[in-house]
Formats: sequence, structure tokens, C-alpha cells
Amino acid sequence: ARNGVPEVIFGEGKRVEQISAIVARLRARHQRALVTRLDTERAEHVLRDHPDGQYDPVSRLLRWGEAPERLPGRVAVICAGTSDLPVAEEASQTLEWLGVEVARLNDVGVAGLDRLLAHREAITHADVLIVVAGMEGALPSVVTGLVRSPVLAVPTSVGYGASLQGVTALLGMLSACATGMSVVNIDNGFGAAWQAASILGLVARGVHPAPADFRSNTDIPDS
Amino acid sequence: ARNGVPEVIFGEGKRVEQISAIVARLRARHQRALVTRLDTERAEHVLRDHPDGQYDPVSRLLRWGEAPERLPGRVAVICAGTSDLPVAEEASQTLEWLGVEVARLNDVGVAGLDRLLAHREAITHADVLIVVAGMEGALPSVVTGLVRSPVLAVPTSVGYGASLQGVTALLGMLSACATGMSVVNIDNGFGAAWQAASILGLVARGVHPAPADFRSNTDIPDS
Amino acid sequence: ARNGVPEVIFGEGKRVEQISAIVARLRARHQRALVTRLDTERAEHVLRDHPDGQYDPVSRLLRWGEAPERLPGRVAVICAGTSDLPVAEEASQTLEWLGVEVARLNDVGVAGLDRLLAHREAITHADVLIVVAGMEGALPSVVTGLVRSPVLAVPTSVGYGASLQGVTALLGMLSACATGMSVVNIDNGFGAAWQAASILGLVARGVHPAPADFRSNTDIPDS
Amino acid sequence: ARNGVPEVIFGEGKRVEQISAIVARLRARHQRALVTRLDTERAEHVLRDHPDGQYDPVSRLLRWGEAPERLPGRVAVICAGTSDLPVAEEASQTLEWLGVEVARLNDVGVAGLDRLLAHREAITHADVLIVVAGMEGALPSVVTGLVRSPVLAVPTSVGYGASLQGVTALLGMLSACATGMSVVNIDNGFGAAWQAASILGLVARGVHPAPADFRSNTDIPDS
Amino acid sequence: ARNGVPEVIFGEGKRVEQISAIVARLRARHQRALVTRLDTERAEHVLRDHPDGQYDPVSRLLRWGEAPERLPGRVAVICAGTSDLPVAEEASQTLEWLGVEVARLNDVGVAGLDRLLAHREAITHADVLIVVAGMEGALPSVVTGLVRSPVLAVPTSVGYGASLQGVTALLGMLSACATGMSVVNIDNGFGAAWQAASILGLVARGVHPAPADFRSNTDIPDS
Amino acid sequence: ARNGVPEVIFGEGKRVEQISAIVARLRARHQRALVTRLDTERAEHVLRDHPDGQYDPVSRLLRWGEAPERLPGRVAVICAGTSDLPVAEEASQTLEWLGVEVARLNDVGVAGLDRLLAHREAITHADVLIVVAGMEGALPSVVTGLVRSPVLAVPTSVGYGASLQGVTALLGMLSACATGMSVVNIDNGFGAAWQAASILGLVARGVHPAPADFRSNTDIPDS
Amino acid sequence: ARNGVPEVIFGEGKRVEQISAIVARLRARHQRALVTRLDTERAEHVLRDHPDGQYDPVSRLLRWGEAPERLPGRVAVICAGTSDLPVAEEASQTLEWLGVEVARLNDVGVAGLDRLLAHREAITHADVLIVVAGMEGALPSVVTGLVRSPVLAVPTSVGYGASLQGVTALLGMLSACATGMSVVNIDNGFGAAWQAASILGLVARGVHPAPADFRSNTDIPDS
Amino acid sequence: ARNGVPEVIFGEGKRVEQISAIVARLRARHQRALVTRLDTERAEHVLRDHPDGQYDPVSRLLRWGEAPERLPGRVAVICAGTSDLPVAEEASQTLEWLGVEVARLNDVGVAGLDRLLAHREAITHADVLIVVAGMEGALPSVVTGLVRSPVLAVPTSVGYGASLQGVTALLGMLSACATGMSVVNIDNGFGAAWQAASILGLVARGVHPAPADFRSNTDIPDS
Ligand SMILES: Nc1ncnc2c1ncn2[C@@H]1O[C@H](COP(=O)(O)O)[C@@H](O)[C@H]1O
Ligand SMILES: Nc1ncnc2c1ncn2[C@@H]1O[C@H](COP(=O)(O)O)[C@@H](O)[C@H]1O
Ligand SMILES: Nc1ncnc2c1ncn2[C@@H]1O[C@H](COP(=O)(O)O)[C@@H](O)[C@H]1O
Ligand SMILES: Nc1ncnc2c1ncn2[C@@H]1O[C@H](COP(=O)(O)O)[C@@H](O)[C@H]1O
Ligand SMILES: [Mg+2]
Ligand SMILES: [Mg+2]
Ligand SMILES: [Mg+2]
Ligand SMILES: [Mg+2]
Ligand SMILES: [Mg+2]
Ligand SMILES: [Mg+2]
Ligand SMILES: [Mg+2]
Ligand SMILES: [Mg+2]
Repeated sequence: ARNGVPEVIFGEGKRVEQISAIVARLRARHQRALVTRLDTERAEHVLRDHPDGQYDPVSRLLRWGEAPERLPGRVAVICAGTSDLPVAEEASQTLEWLGVEVARLNDVGVAGLDRLLAHREAITHADVLIVVAGMEGALPSVVTGLVRSPVLAVPTSVGYGASLQGVTALLGMLSACATGMSVVNIDNGFGAAWQAASILGLVARGVHPAPADFRSNTDIPDS
Repeated sequence: ARNGVPEVIFGEGKRVEQISAIVARLRARHQRALVTRLDTERAEHVLRDHPDGQYDPVSRLLRWGEAPERLPGRVAVICAGTSDLPVAEEASQTLEWLGVEVARLNDVGVAGLDRLLAHREAITHADVLIVVAGMEGALPSVVTGLVRSPVLAVPTSVGYGASLQGVTALLGMLSACATGMSVVNIDNGFGAAWQAASILGLVARGVHPAPADFRSNTDIPDS
Repeated sequence: ARNGVPEVIFGEGKRVEQISAIVARLRARHQRALVTRLDTERAEHVLRDHPDGQYDPVSRLLRWGEAPERLPGRVAVICAGTSDLPVAEEASQTLEWLGVEVARLNDVGVAGLDRLLAHREAITHADVLIVVAGMEGALPSVVTGLVRSPVLAVPTSVGYGASLQGVTALLGMLSACATGMSVVNIDNGFGAAWQAASILGLVARGVHPAPADFRSNTDIPDS
Repeated sequence: ARNGVPEVIFGEGKRVEQISAIVARLRARHQRALVTRLDTERAEHVLRDHPDGQYDPVSRLLRWGEAPERLPGRVAVICAGTSDLPVAEEASQTLEWLGVEVARLNDVGVAGLDRLLAHREAITHADVLIVVAGMEGALPSVVTGLVRSPVLAVPTSVGYGASLQGVTALLGMLSACATGMSVVNIDNGFGAAWQAASILGLVARGVHPAPADFRSNTDIPDS
Repeated sequence: ARNGVPEVIFGEGKRVEQISAIVARLRARHQRALVTRLDTERAEHVLRDHPDGQYDPVSRLLRWGEAPERLPGRVAVICAGTSDLPVAEEASQTLEWLGVEVARLNDVGVAGLDRLLAHREAITHADVLIVVAGMEGALPSVVTGLVRSPVLAVPTSVGYGASLQGVTALLGMLSACATGMSVVNIDNGFGAAWQAASILGLVARGVHPAPADFRSNTDIPDS
Repeated sequence: ARNGVPEVIFGEGKRVEQISAIVARLRARHQRALVTRLDTERAEHVLRDHPDGQYDPVSRLLRWGEAPERLPGRVAVICAGTSDLPVAEEASQTLEWLGVEVARLNDVGVAGLDRLLAHREAITHADVLIVVAGMEGALPSVVTGLVRSPVLAVPTSVGYGASLQGVTALLGMLSACATGMSVVNIDNGFGAAWQAASILGLVARGVHPAPADFRSNTDIPDS
Repeated sequence: ARNGVPEVIFGEGKRVEQISAIVARLRARHQRALVTRLDTERAEHVLRDHPDGQYDPVSRLLRWGEAPERLPGRVAVICAGTSDLPVAEEASQTLEWLGVEVARLNDVGVAGLDRLLAHREAITHADVLIVVAGMEGALPSVVTGLVRSPVLAVPTSVGYGASLQGVTALLGMLSACATGMSVVNIDNGFGAAWQAASILGLVARGVHPAPADFRSNTDIPDS
Repeated sequence: ARNGVPEVIFGEGKRVEQISAIVARLRARHQRALVTRLDTERAEHVLRDHPDGQYDPVSRLLRWGEAPERLPGRVAVICAGTSDLPVAEEASQTLEWLGVEVARLNDVGVAGLDRLLAHREAITHADVLIVVAGMEGALPSVVTGLVRSPVLAVPTSVGYGASLQGVTALLGMLSACATGMSVVNIDNGFGAAWQAASILGLVARGVHPAPADFRSNTDIPDS
């Protein structure tokens, strides 16, 4: 719970009672809670204890409450293909829960470049971009080349054979020579959303004033 | 030596005398020869025995003679970055030795999309396209989306870290959802050129007339 | 929808309603549609909305309509073992839907060479060859050595242990020194078919006349 | 050259004359230039043509000129061990060339936690953090847990055996459950610096005002 | 059955009757038995033959009897996240069955360092430490840096994407430069417990007196 | 020194004096010795101490003496390409040193099938076959399909890119469905030769008479 | 059907009707048939058409008929752990179907060396040895060191975590420095049995007389 | 410098002046120092500044001073082959510097089991065992099966092909089912020595008395 946002519950591999108990405690303290990677069946069980939550089966997010205040700016969540939508929605809805405005651009893969370029203006006006792509994962480097805002690339496990469950997209994004882009784990829409919010949080609060007495530590440490 | 083209000598790991002897025999029979992956030092040795050859240190090709007749059409050899040039030139000069016209487009990576789109007309007018790219290897799928001619993708070992000596580009190209594209080995400009020539060879001689008596074999074989 | 052929729908991971909606729109515009990688159950659902389609459970293809005109030539689809048939049929039936004549040769693996050589004439008379093989994937290089037409190699995920779900066959095909062969993704019969049709499409329309003013771009670009 | 910063020259695998020519053109247009991954010997050759540059053998950067204006805020560049210094310095000096103030914290690996915690205040006051670590690459998740500013993690190829030339550190950073962190390629101090500058650039210019007419594109596209 | 402890039965992939028969023989000889990696359903079947056993569904251990005497000292079993609990409990309950006192510290991952440091005293007073962590597996090196007792690191298969089913955590732990730590297989809580007990067994019985006549064998052997 | 053959010295990574000392002892006892993987320079040093040996720079074998008696039968050593010769010669010359007759068939790769079939009779008359191939490693399965004698497959590290230093050939050979074939390590011509000799040794001495009292052990062991 | 033994049917991924049809044809010609890797349910279906077969659920083999004559000698099938039994039985029962006598030694892993050494005499009297082991796969090299007969090593997919589904055991067996051992695919008890039978077949028929006119082919081929 | 032992300097990738400076500081404080992985040339440079040190080119250790007091017990350092000696010596000499008595057993690989068993008594009387092996790395599990003292397994990068620079040995050791064994990084003799000393240190000081007020933390933490 650094900076007032409650920890988010990773739903995979947790039992329903564990989740319900953590949600109870988080809501008591923060008035809101978010569970990720929760399948429909377990979500329904948790909702019996906490019936005022909202569950979305595409993103597999279960959430209660709202961000007390909104962050400035807008994040474009761009996704290459229909099959990448669950990851893109995990990003988009996490952002909304964090109080960030989202612009969604779906199904704009690199093999149909004109479809992407049709949205060029929307893309260049986003403050942060989250680009979600599976298979060869080429979309983020193309988008990064079109904008000066920071791009967060999310590889997905969509694909077969040489896609290696997302490892190919992941390695491709890391290898890209486009500048102004960094990468999160395969299918980690949540992580990209949080990093985007942390960037907009910096915009909101502004940079620290330089401390009077800071000295870089470049000595070899004692041991 | 199927179809009148002499076998090409893979120069890596062969001794100078071995290469000279094979070249002698090939030239006696075919009036031309090609050695690939030959470094400057060994090329100079081979040239002492066969002084009328041409060696190019970028492509590392050593060649004698010309294709007796030219193939129809033109192959665009497109390369993503300056560091991919040796592989692109291996493709281009192999094509020229095989009697194929080449159009070179260098340094048109996906992170600078406008640079690529500036050549859109040239690209869409090529009959076969060879697209050479290292790092994340995204260029071939972007190009394939722009054309209806067959695209041959060549991953290169250019890059570092997550590029894994070309494996990332290779897997990315194979995972691409763009249709009308197939892939050769890492750094194999030679193989892409040969496949392009084999396609144009088919154009040159036309398809076979359908045989009167062909029957698909779909029985389970005897054993 | 480059060149009049509608986009093909990748069925894996799409919901039935999504597929039905896309099929409706494609058929309205193109009078035909093709869905790949669709299991029987979902196919039956889609067929309720579009009952005049044909579904084949081996290739897992669901299709409506026919190519308005046929392409010249004939593609041999050769497969190494019975277990590779689903991938071979994905290739063959995609070709038929694209208006291409297919010659099927099944179960002609390299360990029974005489079985393969019995078809030598049929093989050498094909205009394009698609060679499908799992396990060690040796068939394409053997076939490529017998023909001068372009060969498209399709590794399959058939095998166990060291086969690594098709990765071994894929890497083997890419490593082959046989010339005149290129490779598509594991189990991607569809992609090989499309590339074969794109080659025959080039034969059908002939090469472009050389443009008067083309100049290779070999300058270092401005930045 | 998006947004007034000249493209940076990737020095690896380029010939001295190529580099000199590009530097000349960039300086003519932008009054400054930066070459990365340049060894001492080639740097000296380039400096003969452009003698007013500065070369640093640790970071292997060669640079001319200065950013015309400084960006707000300060980036902490934290590095786990002495052997990671070249990558950390590539990040720090790229930042300085981009007009960003840098705070260096060296040799604060997780196995000596007190050494890290001694700098806790400096760490929590940075606006963006670049954390550089090889071997198991644990430092970034520890640091991310201490701050709310965005963290950029840079795995290095330092280590042996199970470190797999940086792949272990890379995968570890991507797998970390710490939130507010994204990752760049192995040894890519340059890329982290650029992303940090792109975040501070957003702080400097502020977010875009929301456009009057934006609509998310969530339709299935025509094909 | 070295040193009086009966062999432990690896339950995975064994049939119920096989397990029952081995348990019968072990109990006849040793008065106790332990089965690992047994799911609830098979455990119930085995309990029909041997109803006085205890089954725990979290650790998946089924056990009968007790260690005839307790070992000295105490092992801290520390686990990074709730999802790692099954592996941590496999370690803890194996230790208890072996007659070792256990101190459990759950959910003290490195991203919330203060949570870990709150237990610093408990950690530094353990005689052996077993540290269980999935994802990037950073916890063991942090803990090892805080103590002088031997640390046994257990990677778990918890995580997704780049976690590669525990391989990333495993490689990370092996690459760590923290000294005084060794590693067991992914999810092998049992193996870590046994090694901890073998260390405390050495403490219990003391070192061997030095033999009068020992000579190191450093000759090259005869062959 | 089981069965009268002296142990063979693995030359890689041993110092010259170590090798000389072991050779001295082996020759004193067995009148012969064999060192593998020895480069020319170190071979010359060892020959100063033991001048009556024979060194071959292609196979990198250094040997003294002869097998006291010859084994029955003949081993065909077949190799796919010129670059595989060093490994094939390691096999052939080890066999000769072990007293086995060798038939060499060089450069008969699968892409030129007629070249292989020209030797069909020689191949089917070998008693054991060693088949050496790099790149995709397809030759052993083709050969195995032609013979009923046991085949030993030796992958080599010849190739580039997707060949992965011999791993692709190794995995391909293991995945092959041809029956009557087993595999040794990459580049391990020596190991294949030894296994071939061990098979011919069995032929020479004949099978054991069945023991009167043998009982298969299928009980579950005591523990 | 080289040498009178009918081809064996690989049951995995084949439909019941396909298998029944092939069995019918094989039995008509050879009076016997063998199907491998067949689960109980499909076996029962096939047995409806061919009720006089024998199915064993452990080895998953379904077989009809007997070898018309027995091969000389005896194969020891040694297996490291109870979980490796299915693979060991696939080997043993394939051998029996091929007319070879089998000696089974179960559960003699290297961690309990005395258990293995108790069988030392039986082991040294086998004519061929098949050694089956999962996890780290150390048993074959230990056994190979005890005997002079040829050893065939079979890695199994038994294990978890670092065992990588048998890849670790496979690579370990290939890396072993014990001489007189070769390796087959993971879980391929069938392949090891066939290779053992092919060795004993050579013993049965004796070596070929040397041909009068054989010449090794060591020329560089024409091309 | 926990517990009075100075940090050891990892020599790889450090410059001579850096090392000399750290050594100076460490010796001032602790009267002794140890540098690992130092080649002869750099060692000689460091010795100019600190001439009273001892350098051993096999282990590549450079050391000054002695442990002020000796630890109880004796560590057996067992190594499988001559090529593993550098790693074994890194372990042995680190132990000696740490004040631990060492018993060396060299060249006792599993393929010559009798050679190992000849030392059975020495092995079973060691208090801690460090077992060093490359290639398939089978020695540690065999040794672990013979003793009840804790075993530390050190894989080495010795081998070729399928050995994968030590990864095969590493994974094999982790997969071993022998109990009472844990593993360190490839070639990390230093790390195994330190862990052995940390075990003997525990023996020397005895276990902690149980604290009066310890409570296991099994609550779900606040967030
Ligand atoms: N889908 C997700 N992917 C990665 N990290 C997550 C995800 N959901 C939650 N987390 C993080 O996981 C941690 C909570 O894990 P846990 O204690 O297991 O619920 C917090 O740091 C979360 O921010
Ligand atoms: N650079 C190359 N990459 C892949 N194959 C090649 C290359 N150069 C030549 N080849 C092929 O290698 C074969 C000749 O190999 P070799 O007999 O070793 O010279 C022929 O099939 C050539 O077409
Ligand atoms: N379990 C098995 N593992 C490997 N190869 C097998 C197996 N069973 C049968 N085969 C081989 O597979 C081939 C038959 O494959 P198929 O035509 O698919 O039935 C023959 O060469 C068999 O000897
Ligand atoms: N050969 C080695 N392998 C692994 N860790 C080592 C080695 N030598 C020293 N270390 C550890 O590396 C750390 C020192 O690293 P450094 O600060 O780079 O000298 C200390 O924790 C040492 O105990
Ligand atoms: Mg950008
Ligand atoms: Mg196209
Ligand atoms: Mg061809
Ligand atoms: Mg943070
Ligand atoms: Mg410690
Ligand atoms: Mg055979
Ligand atoms: Mg032997
Ligand atoms: Mg033990």
C-alpha cells in the first residue's frame, strides 16, 4: 500500500476463502479492492461474500470501489488482434480502477498497416501508450516509431508453434531498436497499467526539488 | 546440378585446396562457379589458382562467369538496418549471378515507418521480395502486408542480448500472421536468393500441363 | 483483402458470435469465407447462422463459396506420416478454396525411401510442392533434392520427447542445405497454401514490366 | 529525429567511415551526436575526423555537443556490482547527453541489504530510477518495493554458468511481482536512459488536453 | 534406509496398491512412513489400508508415526508469497516428521522489504534456513545476506510467462552471488527439508575424529 | 581397461605432461594407446616423449600400436558433407585402432539422393553403419530405412543459425521414426566407433549360454 | 517390412478404424502385428475387430502372433525406478514379440548402489543391455562401466522441475563419458528393443563376407 | 563481512587497480584476503602491490593470510575427472583459506565404479562432501547414496555437445532423487566451499537456544 493504492490480489492459485478474507481487510482500510486473473466460477463465490463488486469475464478482473481522484492525461491501449483482447482489457480496466482515462484501439496489427495508420493522430496524442501483441509482437516497435510518449509493450501468449507461448513476442519486443519503449511480462496487462499510472502519477505530483546535499555514491564500499 | 545451375560451394570450413579443386571441376563443366561465406584471406588464395574471379568482402562471395540467360522479373531485396547489409548483399549478388534483376532498398526498418512508406510503390511493384532483418525481425510482416507478391524473410544474427544470435528474429518471422511469406535460416541470404530464382524460373517456363492419368495417393501404404 | 481474396479467419480462441459476425460481413462483400482451426463443436454453432458452409473435421476448416477463377498449375501436397494428415489437409483444402489444383501424396516418409521414389515422376511434375513432416522433419530436404520447383516445408508437432512439439522438425528444415526451399510455422498448412497460391498468382499475372525510373536506394538515410 | 533529438548511432558492427559520415550529417543538422558501443580503437579513428568529441572507455560512448535545454527532475542510476558499471555508465552518460540530471548509486546489491538501505532516502527521492543488475537480477524488485516512482530495470550479462549471459537476470526481472517496473534488453543502458528521458519529457510538456471527438475503436475491422 | 530413517515414497505416478504395499513393509520395519506428492483421492484410498495416517491436502503429504528422537536446533521455513505455501508446507511437515523444530515465516517477499525486515531477529536466530520463492526467486539471496547460518533455496513453479514454470527462479537462485546458500529442484520442499535435517544430524552427532592414516588421493589412476 | 582394451585418453583440456605420463603407463601395460581431440601443437609435444606414434590432423587422433587381433565384419562410415569429415575420420581411425575394417563413404547427403543410392549395395552389405551428419541430420534415418544392420548416428556441429551447434541434428536423429538406430553425442565419432566395436565384439565371442538359475527381479525392493 | 518383421504401428494420434485396417492387412501378410502407445479405451475398440490380440495396460502395447523363430542371446532390461516401468515394459514386451529372451531388473537406481551391485553378475552376463532411467538418468553410465556388452540407454520423462520432461536425462546420457553406450529418444522403449534385436540379428546371421571389389568412396563428388 | 570473514573478491571482469585497492582495504581490516577467478597475468600485477600473497594457477585463487582459527571436521572434495580439477581446487583451497581441513579424492567417475568404491570408507567418514562433476554429472547422486553427511554438488562446464557448457550436469544434479544433497552454480567451487564452511561453522558454535517468545508468522499480512 505505498502511495495510498491498496495492493492488488493475484487471484491465480488462491482459494476463494483466502481471497474473500484479503478483500474484506483491504476494503475496510481502502474502500476498494482489485483481484486479477480470477475465473468466473471463483469470482461468483467471492461475490457471495462481497456482492457489490463488478466482475468482467474477458479481463478476469473483479473489483470494488473507485480511485478517490483521477490522474491527469490519457493512456492509449492498442492491441494487435482480437485474441489479445483479454490482456488489453486487463490493462484498460486496471487503469480505470486506478483513475486513469483510457483510449482503446483494437485489432490494428502490423500486417494491415493502413488500419494502424488510420489512427495515427489518436496514437500521437496519447500521453502513455500500452501496446499489446502476441505472435511475432511487432506492433510496439512500429508504434514507438510514431510517437514521442513512453510506450509500454505487453507480449501475449497468443499464437502457436514458433510463438512459444509468448516467449517469441517477449524477446522480439526486448530486441526492438525503437527507442522510448520498455517491456513487461507475457500477458501482464496489469503490470503495464500500473507502470503507466506510476508515470502519470509523477506528472501529477511533479518532480522532486533537487536536495541540497546529494552526492552520488561512486566509492567502492567497505566490506 | 539440377536444371543447369552448378552447385554452389559452401566455403565455411573448407580448405583452400578443396575449394580450388571443386571450382576447377565446376568451371570445366559449367563455365561458372560461386563460393559463399569465404573470408578475404582464403579468397585471395583461391584467386591465385583462378584469377579471373570476382570477390566481394561485404557479401563474402567469390564468383566466376555469368548466368547464360536472364530470368524474367525483378526481386526487391529490402534490409532493415546497415548491419544487415552483408546478408542482403549475399542475397542480391547471388541473384545477379543467377541472372535475376535486383532492386535494393536499404535501411528501412519499422521504427521509422515513413522511410519504408516512401518506397511503397517500388515495393508493391516487385515480383518477389526478400526482406532481411535482425533484432526483432518485424520488417517482413510489415512488408508482406503491403504486397501480393511472395515474400521471403531472412532473419539475421544482428543484435544482442534477447536477440539470441538471430533466433528471436527467426521465431518472430515464423510466428507472423501476415500471409504470403516463408522463411529461411538465419543469415541465409544465399538460400532466399535461390528460392526467389526458383520462383522466377517457374514463371519463365510456365506450369506443367496436367498429366492425363494422375491420381492422388491417399491409400494407406502396404508394409 | 489485398487482391480480391477475403481475409481468412483464425478460429482459435475466438467466440462463436465473433466468428459468425465476421463471416456475415465477409460473405456480404466477397461471397465466400474461410475459418481455420475450428473444432467440431464451435463449427456446428457457426453453421446454425450460416448453414450452407462445409466443415471438415480433419483439417478443421469451415468454408463457404469458391474462388471465382482458378489459378494455373498444380501443387503437390506431400506428407510423411498418417499423423501429419490434419496439417496436410489444412494445406490442400485451403488451396482448393483458393482455386488451386492439388495432388496429394500421403505417408511417404524418408525411412521407406522406395515408397517415396515410387512417386518420383509425380513429384518432379508438380509446379509448387508443399512438404509436411513431423518428428525429425527430413522429408522436405529429400524432396527438394529431387525437383527444381519451389518447395514449401511445413513442420508438424507430431512426435514425442526430442521432437519438442515440432521445434526439432522446424529447426531441421531451416538447417537443411537443400536449395529451393523455404519454411513456415509449425502446423501452418494454411500459411504454406497461401504462399503457394501467391507464387501461382505471380505465374498467372506475369512479372511487372521494369519501371523506367527505378533506382536502388543504397544511401544512408537522413535522420 | 522525432522531437528534436537526433538519432543515436549504434556503433557495433559499423565501419569507421560509415560512422564518420553519419556523424558529419547529424552534427550539421543538430549540432550534436552520440555513438554507442564503440571500442577505443575505432573511437580514435572517428575522433580524427571529428576531434572535438568526448570518448569514455567505460561506457564506450562517443559524443559531441549538449542538449540545448535540460529536462526537469533527476534519475537515479543504481547498480548492483562493480562489474555492472559499464552498463550503468552507458545509462548515466546517455542521460547527461539528453539533458537529464543523474544520481549514481554503485555497488548496492541485495546480498548486502544494509548497504542499499543506507541510501533509502536518496532512492525514494528520485523521479525515475534505472536499476542495473546481472547474475540473478534481484535488485530492481527490491528497489521497486521501496519507491512509487517508475523503475526501469536493466539486466546485464555479468555472471557465469546459470546466469546464461544475462538471460536469467532478464527473465527474473520480467517475472518480478513488484509493481511499477518495466524492463529493457540485456546490457541496454542506452534504452533505459532514453525511456527515462521520454518520461521526464512528458513531465516537462504536460499531458495533452483531451480531444473533443475521440472515440475508442472497438469495432471489428472490415477486411 | 541409511541412518535409521526409512526411505520416503515419491507418490507421483505410483498406483494406490503399490503405495499401500510399500507402506506396509516400511511400517513393519520402521514404525513410520511418509508419502509425498499424493493427491486427496489417492490418499483416501491408501488410508483405507492404513487408517491411522495423517493426510494434509496443502502439502500433499501422507504420514504415519514420528521420529523416535528429535534433532537439535530449529529450521526457519520462509516463503515469499501465499501461492508458495504448498511447497513451504512440504518442507515444514517433512521436517516435523524427521523430528526437527520449524519456525514458519509466510508471505515475506522482497517487494515489501519492511515486512521481511520486521522478522530480522527471528531470521538471524535460525540454525538452518529454507527459503521458498517463485517468480523471480529473489528472496533467498536477500535472506542469505542477513544471516551466517546455511540457507537452502527452493524455487517454485509459481508465476507465469517469463517465469517458465520455475526455471527462472531456479537459475536466479543459482546465479546469486550471496554466499552460504545452495539450491534444490523446483518445488522440492521435501529435498530441502532432508538436507536441513542432514545438517542438523551432523550437529547432533558431531564431526568424525580425524583418521590416523588418511591420505588424499591425487594420483592419476591406473587404467 | 575392461576386456583388454586400454582406456582412451580424452585430450581436450589436458596438459601435455599429463598426457605423456598416462601414455607411458598405458603403453607399458598394453603396448598401445590412443589420444583423442588433440591439436597439432600439443600432439607434437607429446610425440617428443613418444616419437613412434602417428598423428592425424583431420581426426585429431594420436595413436601408438595396433589391436592384437582383428574383429570380424566391417563398419561403413558414411558422411553427409565434406565439413563432417573430421568427425567421420575420428570414427574410422578409432575403429582401425580397435582392429575393425572400415568402409568410407563420403559426401552422400540426402539433398542429392542419387549420389546416396549409387552406393546402395555397399550400404546394405555393411555389418554395422556409422552415419555422420550435421545441419538437419537427415542422413541416418534415410540410411536406416535401407538396411537391417544396426545404425549408429553421429550428429555434428557443422552448420549455422538454426543448426544450433549440432543440437538440431542431435534432436532430429533422436526423433527419427526409422527403427534400428541409436545416437551418440554431437561430434562424438569416437563413441560411435567404440559402440560399433562392442557390437562386433559380441559377434566375435557369441552370446552367453543362458544361466541355469536366472530369475528376473521384479519385486519391489526392501528399503 | 525389411527382413520379414512387419512394420510396427505407432498408435498415438491414429483413429481406431485406421489402426484396425492396418492390423488386418499386416496380419494377412505376416500373421502378426504390434501397436504401440495405445490407451485402454482405443485398444478395446481395436480388439472388437481383432479379438485374439493381447493388450497390456502398463506398456500400452497391443499385439497378435509370435516371432516365427527366436533370436540368440538375452537382453537385460534394467530400470531405475518404479515410475520408469511403463517404458521398461514397452522394451521388454517388444523384445518378446520380436523373439528375444528378456531378463528384467527393476528399481535399481544409482542412489542405492548396493541394490545395483547385488545384481552385478546378472548384469555382466547379458548380451545386450537396455537401461531405462528418468530424472538425472545416471544409471546407464554406471551400468556401462560394469560391462563390455553394448548398452542402449533410454531416458524417460519421469521427474519434475529441472528434469524438463526427460530432456535432462536425455542430455545426460549423451554427455556420459562411459564407452559402449548409445541413446534413443525419451520414453522410446520400443526403439531400444528394436535396436537390441537388430544387434542380436547380426549375431544370428553372422557378418557379411568381405566383397572382392569394394573401394571406399573418398573422392569429392561431381556436381 | 558478516561473522568476521572478509568478503571475497570476484576477480573476473575487475581491473588490476580495482582489485589492489580492495585487497589493501580488506587486509588493513582483516589481515587476510582472497581473490577468485584471476588469471596469471593479472595476478602478477596485483602481486606487485601485495607481494606476500600466494597465487595458484590451477584454482586461479590469489590469497593472503590465514583463518585465525580452524573449524572442526573435514570436507571431502571429490572430483569425477582430471578436467574438473580447477573447480575442485577452487573448492579445496577456499576451504583451506577458511580454516577447514580437506580430503581430496580425484578422478573417481561413475563409469569406473570400482575406483570410487575403493574409497568408500574415506567417503563415509567425511563430515561434509563436495562432489564436482561435468558431462552428465552423475557422481554426486552416487556419492549421496553412500553417505549420511550433507553433500554439496558442483556441476562443471567440462564436456562438449549435449553437455551444454555445464547446464546438463547442473540440471541432472537438481533432478537427482538422492536425498541429502544440494547444488551450487556451474563451476562454483568457491560457493560450495563457503556453504560447507557455513555448515561446519554451525557445528562449531552449536544451535541457538530456542527463544522464549517465538511465534510462527502464518497470518496473511496487512497491505
Ligand atoms: N496479474 C498480475 N500479474 C503480476 N502481478 C500481479 C498481478 N496481480 C497482482 N499482482 C501483484 O502481485 C502482488 C500480490 O500478490 P499476492 O500477495 O500473491 O496476492 C502485488 O504486488 C500485486 O501488485
Ligand atoms: N551460404 C550457404 N548457406 C546455405 N547453403 C549453402 C550456402 N552455400 C552453399 N550452400 C549449399 O550447400 C551445398 C554445398 O555444400 P558443400 O558440398 O559443403 O559445398 C549446396 O546445396 C549449396 O547450394
Ligand atoms: N513407440 C514408437 N516410438 C517410435 N517409433 C515407433 C513407435 N511405434 C512404432 N514406431 C515406428 O513408427 C513407424 C510407423 O509409423 P506409422 O506409419 O505412423 O504407424 C515405424 O517405423 C515404426 O517402427
Ligand atoms: N568465484 C565466485 N563465484 C561466485 N561468487 C563469488 C566468487 N568469488 C567471489 N564471490 C562473491 O562475490 C561477491 C563479491 O563480488 P564483487 O563485489 O564483484 O567482488 C561476494 O559475495 C563473494 O563472496
Ligand atoms: Mg517513441
Ligand atoms: Mg503478401
Ligand atoms: Mg529444388
Ligand atoms: Mg514502485
Ligand atoms: Mg549467509
Ligand atoms: Mg535398419
Ligand atoms: Mg561397456
Ligand atoms: Mg546422503
